[in-house]
Amino acid sequence: MLVNRKTIRIEWGDCDPGGIVYFPRYFEYLDACTNELFERAGLPKRHMLETYGIAGIPLVESRARFLVPSQFGDSVVAESSVSEWGRSSFTVHHKIFKDDLLAAEVFEKRVWVARPADGLKLFQGRAIPETVKKRFEKKAVH
Amino acid sequence: MLVNRKTIRIEWGDCDPGGIVYFPRYFEYLDACTNELFERAGLPKRHMLETYGIAGIPLVESRARFLVPSQFGDSVVAESSVSEWGRSSFTVHHKIFKDDLLAAEVFEKRVWVARPADGLKLFQGRAIPETVKKRFEKKAVH
Amino acid sequence: MLVNRKTIRIEWGDCDPGGIVYFPRYFEYLDACTNELFERAGLPKRHMLETYGIAGIPLVESRARFLVPSQFGDSVVAESSVSEWGRSSFTVHHKIFKDDLLAAEVFEKRVWVARPADGLKLFQGRAIPETVKKRFEKKAVH
Amino acid sequence: MLVNRKTIRIEWGDCDPGGIVYFPRYFEYLDACTNELFERAGLPKRHMLETYGIAGIPLVESRARFLVPSQFGDSVVAESSVSEWGRSSFTVHHKIFKDDLLAAEVFEKRVWVARPADGLKLFQGRAIPETVKKRFEKKAVH
Repeated sequence: MLVNRKTIRIEWGDCDPGGIVYFPRYFEYLDACTNELFERAGLPKRHMLETYGIAGIPLVESRARFLVPSQFGDSVVAESSVSEWGRSSFTVHHKIFKDDLLAAEVFEKRVWVARPADGLKLFQGRAIPETVKKRFEKKAVH
Repeated sequence: MLVNRKTIRIEWGDCDPGGIVYFPRYFEYLDACTNELFERAGLPKRHMLETYGIAGIPLVESRARFLVPSQFGDSVVAESSVSEWGRSSFTVHHKIFKDDLLAAEVFEKRVWVARPADGLKLFQGRAIPETVKKRFEKKAVH
Repeated sequence: MLVNRKTIRIEWGDCDPGGIVYFPRYFEYLDACTNELFERAGLPKRHMLETYGIAGIPLVESRARFLVPSQFGDSVVAESSVSEWGRSSFTVHHKIFKDDLLAAEVFEKRVWVARPADGLKLFQGRAIPETVKKRFEKKAVH
Repeated sequence: MLVNRKTIRIEWGDCDPGGIVYFPRYFEYLDACTNELFERAGLPKRHMLETYGIAGIPLVESRARFLVPSQFGDSVVAESSVSEWGRSSFTVHHKIFKDDLLAAEVFEKRVWVARPADGLKLFQGRAIPETVKKRFEKKAVH
């Protein structure tokens, strides 16, 4: 299973008056981690949208636990992998480590969508190609 | 039970290249809704932190479902209330409506924390005063 | 000359560990003010892009002075107007007041752009229609 | 003169419905570049605030030109240096390059501030120590 590891530097502007990461920033960090995971699978997002004629991989559900707060100047490491594939949806599992502690854990359920030609809906789920799913089987090489 | 309703205007800068709200922005919108709910309960955040000697009400868990996407120029309405009180934690339940459709639903579990004097930990949960909880019992008047 | 006044509530998540507005947030606030100014002129952005076949009004230059810091819980008022019209560019002048003090002043030079059909450039300046400029002559009614 | 070079990856969430970087994000990128420049000078921000007893280096003026737009998936390089030192203020000059083109240029005037003990003002300018200024004289080693 392909795992992406990304080091995230906590910036001053990502932190709130309490001095810790303003939590919506974690969702931004991890959205970028999902894109980096796809890139590691050979599917950089801009190219992927064009190749497969999709409009994006929007989030439809998330679950998150925040266990250890981080402050500006800290570095954390996010480990990201696809934990489940459905027909047109999939789940990305992110773990954020601070030193060796699990600092946060987030699941993102996303859908593979196109813009329907009739324009009645903004997006419509599409079957995820098997060739896409296969790319996440191999082990990451760093 | 106190319910706060807040109209949210979707701004151009909150949307992504897919033309819809970049989902971390929902967590920002709703964090502001939680603060507005407390304000409606007579507890504006800056005043509340000083009065009760707390450092904040950081998020420790969230669950979210995104059902209907929104685009810039749209307006949505968020309904927010406290759905559960624990000893030092509580859960805020947000529903976002687009026209009359439920567009998103988010639960935020938060903790009432102080900075411990010994400095060994950044934050420490404190018992939420009963007088605080009582303020959320009355019905909202608009 | 049309002037738009918008009250901006400073949110917790807009502030940094110093307790004041993280300055890039001012540029977000004011981008929304520019859009509201156009809306007041009868040109809501989504409609305007469609009507005139433009891709946007991207910023090409800005100048800003920040005189008085604001903290979460504060409210400020932004006054926005077009201070100069060129052939394909225009300048929006924003003044942010905190109580009666001028707290910040920002000039945004923007361009009226379309996507050229040949695809060689991402954007290309277009002459701003005189009917658009005329809409900013009348006085704002609140 | 010390120069910091930072590669910035343009993320999906940093771009707007026009498909290009939402311009306030550039100010976020460059705020992080200023912090990295100070870190390269041996002054990581968290440590610097403690060592010198300052509250921050807030922005008081900026000037920016945006010449070439960038899209998600692009990488750009920011070159940052202090272009002017005053008694309690200084100016950081940032140039953003896309391939070999100058894509944007931003000047940030910032102030070295402490929180005055009397609490009458939020911040007060302080003389920047000569030892701080000296650290920016040496050439960057990559």
